[in-house]
Amino acid sequence: MTNDQRQAALDYARQHNNEYLNNLKELVEIPSISTDPEHNSDIQRAAAWLAARLTGLGIQNVAVMPTGRHPVVYGEWLGTPGKPVVLIYGHYDVQPVDPVELWQTEPFAAAVLGENLLGRGTSDMKGQVVACISALDALIHTGGLPVNVKFLIEGEEEIGSPSLGKWITEHKDLLKADFCLNPDAGMLGKEYPSITYGLRGLAYFELRVFGPQHDLHSGMVGGIVHNPAQALAELIAATHDQNGRITLPGFYDKVLPLSPEEHADFARLPQTEADYLELTGVKALWGESEYTPAERIGARPTLEVHSLLSGFTGKGQKTVLPASAQAKISCRLVPYQDPEEVYEQFKRFLTEKAPNTIRWELDKFSGGPASISDLNQPGVRALQLALEEVWGITPYFKREGGSIPVVGQLQSLLGIESVLSGFGLPDDNLHAPNEKLHLPTWQRGIESLIHFFFNL
Amino acid sequence: MTNDQRQAALDYARQHNNEYLNNLKELVEIPSISTDPEHNSDIQRAAAWLAARLTGLGIQNVAVMPTGRHPVVYGEWLGTPGKPVVLIYGHYDVQPVDPVELWQTEPFAAAVLGENLLGRGTSDMKGQVVACISALDALIHTGGLPVNVKFLIEGEEEIGSPSLGKWITEHKDLLKADFCLNPDAGMLGKEYPSITYGLRGLAYFELRVFGPQHDLHSGMVGGIVHNPAQALAELIAATHDQNGRITLPGFYDKVLPLSPEEHADFARLPQTEADYLELTGVKALWGESEYTPAERIGARPTLEVHSLLSGFTGKGQKTVLPASAQAKISCRLVPYQDPEEVYEQFKRFLTEKAPNTIRWELDKFSGGPASISDLNQPGVRALQLALEEVWGITPYFKREGGSIPVVGQLQSLLGIESVLSGFGLPDDNLHAPNEKLHLPTWQRGIESLIHFFFNL
Repeated sequence: MTNDQRQAALDYARQHNNEYLNNLKELVEIPSISTDPEHNSDIQRAAAWLAARLTGLGIQNVAVMPTGRHPVVYGEWLGTPGKPVVLIYGHYDVQPVDPVELWQTEPFAAAVLGENLLGRGTSDMKGQVVACISALDALIHTGGLPVNVKFLIEGEEEIGSPSLGKWITEHKDLLKADFCLNPDAGMLGKEYPSITYGLRGLAYFELRVFGPQHDLHSGMVGGIVHNPAQALAELIAATHDQNGRITLPGFYDKVLPLSPEEHADFARLPQTEADYLELTGVKALWGESEYTPAERIGARPTLEVHSLLSGFTGKGQKTVLPASAQAKISCRLVPYQDPEEVYEQFKRFLTEKAPNTIRWELDKFSGGPASISDLNQPGVRALQLALEEVWGITPYFKREGGSIPVVGQLQSLLGIESVLSGFGLPDDNLHAPNEKLHLPTWQRGIESLIHFFFNL
Repeated sequence: MTNDQRQAALDYARQHNNEYLNNLKELVEIPSISTDPEHNSDIQRAAAWLAARLTGLGIQNVAVMPTGRHPVVYGEWLGTPGKPVVLIYGHYDVQPVDPVELWQTEPFAAAVLGENLLGRGTSDMKGQVVACISALDALIHTGGLPVNVKFLIEGEEEIGSPSLGKWITEHKDLLKADFCLNPDAGMLGKEYPSITYGLRGLAYFELRVFGPQHDLHSGMVGGIVHNPAQALAELIAATHDQNGRITLPGFYDKVLPLSPEEHADFARLPQTEADYLELTGVKALWGESEYTPAERIGARPTLEVHSLLSGFTGKGQKTVLPASAQAKISCRLVPYQDPEEVYEQFKRFLTEKAPNTIRWELDKFSGGPASISDLNQPGVRALQLALEEVWGITPYFKREGGSIPVVGQLQSLLGIESVLSGFGLPDDNLHAPNEKLHLPTWQRGIESLIHFFFNL
């Protein structure tokens, strides 16, 4: 490959930017919400769209492959002997859109507003998947691919990839690769290209508290019944102490303290407390005061309430004493914490803290352990150079607060390391109303992926 | 009036039992939910149904009279000079029906199952209103009314009667009466006829807690943001101490201790702890251990959570860090507590306890003070004898946990005392799924009302 070819691919990508954007809009317009069974046909449509796009590109053995729930889109191009095989990971499913009334545009309208493309999945991560496909498209049209690629694009990431581990285990040979490129990890800011080397894990629960056999009139029994909503609030309040530390028994036993080197890495990150205040819109930050905000997000475990539901939530007033109350709660985990052990810790917490006036149930949803990637692999070096080429600075190496179960699964099941990056920004409103993709950054992302494939 | 006439009216009522039941079914089938604006036309239909029924009975000056929100049905019959004027109070509005999936029958189908009539409003209190009308019907058809009556049937009781105080003030002359019969207070059990002399008051609130500007991804900011659902849980947990006492500053300042006589009255009540366990279906009772369950319900103030709502409450999992969380909360008040002062106490509690990481709002809904009735009025004596006649025992005098704002309003605005009774049972599922009316008890209620009017 020559520098002429590299430049030709970059030029081609710039000239076809509108076509790539239209591709992305088509995919965003498919409401492939994985958690909602009513969208199962949209899941199928999104998978079929990707399969058609890969086939059109000349990718071979493209298949929509069933799993226990939502299919995986697979494809490969192995025509460059002697070069590495890059497994490109992506997911085509998206989060729900509630509260839909807070969106400025229809969540699946894929509308361009200023420099941004608005819509559920634009940043997380249909935009990242289409960036990879677009980079390959430009390479294919200007001399061919300089590397070998395989695609693993799943449809369950937003529900914790419950079928993926089994599917990977059943397709070990098919997935053989030198490393995985995973562009689901975002960057620190539009001038701060980033490579992520650590991800938090996840353990997700639903806690239900039961009191009376059915809803009662608060006037007739108020004062003698432990209100389940009150009891749930008391249990949730007890999950943290006054310093923001989590009180599940044994929760921190396997959490390692940060080394001086890790403290120094975090200290290099550009985000200030003011940035976090602006990003979140809160009056004051919260949490373990002995850690910096970036450390709390990247290197400390959490326990978060995702929902509360009890009683009469309609308009107006009703003096019901509710029969039950429930909360969805998850823990973000750091290396060496095990989701199964955290489930046991939560149950022990409830056994110890729940009063005998109520009954509780704790359901476990899917989750996965945290992961730390090896920074010395060739894929990381190739991406680092690519990002330097486009942004003109050394990328930031960061640990990320989110969870990507597939990273741990590829590592533990196939021994494949992931190179984690991506072109989503911290203010992209992932999982929230008005998710967007910053199009100039996305275009730079496509260009850096072209460099990346040449650098391998 | 002779005993022959009394017996003729009782016989007539028995013979026309089916007709009275069909009347009640018609009224129950109108879904007059007062809190939901979508049911405003049903409110109007229920008021019109009552006006037609009263007119058909020969009641005079019947009118559906507008208020700020839902109309009052008025009517009068003043043709028995020298006898007292009884103001018969009722309400034709009902509670919402959620959770509707827990009902055995359609909530507004008015279906007879065994000895019970099922349906929203059967017991609270369309059944009580129709019992009064049926007793008067039997009297009118067998010699005429032995007393004078006026009707005040409102449509806002289940939302705290927000317009009624103003309407009563504007209609002082119209409402002149010797006392008020209010059959909205129920009885202690089907063999325990009861007269209620104390009612708790109500102060109803909605508390909203705000954190980030919009929903965020818990992985990306979890650990640095005080989750509003967590913060709301912490505030709710802090509303009670470990002994079940309410921690709003000054909340108990005006609450009088129970006198030895009051303790003795409560001790006479037939309910045991086992009865309350069966009624509620809880594993163990809760609350202030230095008071008996009946005292906690009748004579102690409470703070109850009626709803919790935050985040993603749909099926499945979503790792949202919600922007806000809210709860509906009310306090049952005992004599001398003022709803307005309790609102100020709640605001002071929040000002003192809420951390600077969140923002809160507290809205006040309608409410009213507690009330204690005079047991020496002639109306109480007439009803006591009537209940003894039908049930063969001295009725129980009790203080009730619920709130009936009109009782306090009639007392303070017009100087009219209320005689509180009724034929609803503790297991009638008021405000809950499968509300029902025990028809044999209802029939005895109609008969005791006939005695009552004769006894005056």
